[in-house]
Amino acid sequence: MNPVAIAEPLRSRWSPSVFDAQHELTDAEITRLLEAAQWAPSSGNRQPWRYVVATRGSAAHRVLVPHLSRGNSGWVPRASVVFLSVVVLGTDGDELKDVLIPAHDVGQASAHLTLQAHAMGLHAHQFGGFDHTAVAAGLGIPDDARVLAGIAVGVRGNPEEVPERDAERDQRARSRRPLAETAYDDRWDHPWPGLAPSGPTTAEQG
Amino acid sequence: MNPVAIAEPLRSRWSPSVFDAQHELTDAEITRLLEAAQWAPSSGNRQPWRYVVATRGSAAHRVLVPHLSRGNSGWVPRASVVFLSVVVLGTDGDELKDVLIPAHDVGQASAHLTLQAHAMGLHAHQFGGFDHTAVAAGLGIPDDARVLAGIAVGVRGNPEEVPERDAERDQRARSRRPLAETAYDDRWDHPWPGLAPSGPTTAEQG
Repeated sequence: MNPVAIAEPLRSRWSPSVFDAQHELTDAEITRLLEAAQWAPSSGNRQPWRYVVATRGSAAHRVLVPHLSRGNSGWVPRASVVFLSVVVLGTDGDELKDVLIPAHDVGQASAHLTLQAHAMGLHAHQFGGFDHTAVAAGLGIPDDARVLAGIAVGVRGNPEEVPERDAERDQRARSRRPLAETAYDDRWDHPWPGLAPSGPTTAEQG
Repeated sequence: MNPVAIAEPLRSRWSPSVFDAQHELTDAEITRLLEAAQWAPSSGNRQPWRYVVATRGSAAHRVLVPHLSRGNSGWVPRASVVFLSVVVLGTDGDELKDVLIPAHDVGQASAHLTLQAHAMGLHAHQFGGFDHTAVAAGLGIPDDARVLAGIAVGVRGNPEEVPERDAERDQRARSRRPLAETAYDDRWDHPWPGLAPSGPTTAEQG
């Protein structure tokens, strides 16, 4: 639970690393998660996001798993499904419109998907540690798109059934930068003077 | 209300264009919105987001308003506060790590802020139509950062008090691409075959 009184499902969202390797999501549940992403806002309603749906054991899953980083190779394959987010880049010759804003908008859609998972009693853990180039090649991602991240979704498993490294990762305390270093007034690095006393910046994992 | 049965506050989030030009948020409410962004996930917990807090009439607001696009110059200044999102870029010489992932993570934090606003009974409308270069210069944004978007937050106003263009925009029907064009299996452009029958892809504004 986050240490500040934000709303659900924001408040109880966190990123566990121990998933139940037997649990499966129904197609209807996966569709519901995709619908949450679908209705995210985007610049000009361009919806620059695509998702590869890699349920455990599927062909897409078999493309991903060999290319996971060492740190992710233990826990990610236990999740019920991995959504791989892909951004379709623009062609205006402008960094903001072609790259930054599309990537920003995919992040929004993935946040919606992740929060929907928590609202459904599932858990989601986003990760970036995999060979993006190899996965893109294996999935036939075109030149004007980039694989951005994975979102592992499932239910919590038994920490005693996973490697010690993953069980430890699951228990790691969470922390965030103080808001005075994030929220500025009209000059960079000048904290917004209205900041009310805020909660602590660390939380237990739960 | 979105036409699919996703969870609150995702379900009732939309982007109105008619704000009450008298309403003000308390500092505690603004802090709460920033806390929602603060606890978003990010790659390596790098939290690459910064927010300029531009309450109506503040110095930061006076920097922004003259640089709004014509389409945004009517409705944005009526909002109680505008958060300008800024991404701090990486320096690894790698497009994915330096640009795409940081922008993606700012999008996530902004989605959390936006959803927190709706959970608090406020409304939020994100926008990109302003002179990003001029605003960055006016706020002293450093070379390794980019202004991405504005998030106008407030409460709904009376459509009869705003220009017809803004009242019309507020009533515009919303639509999204069908999921079959977003969710793929192991080949690009091949719809994920598990897609359950999904809701309609258009919604009234409310």
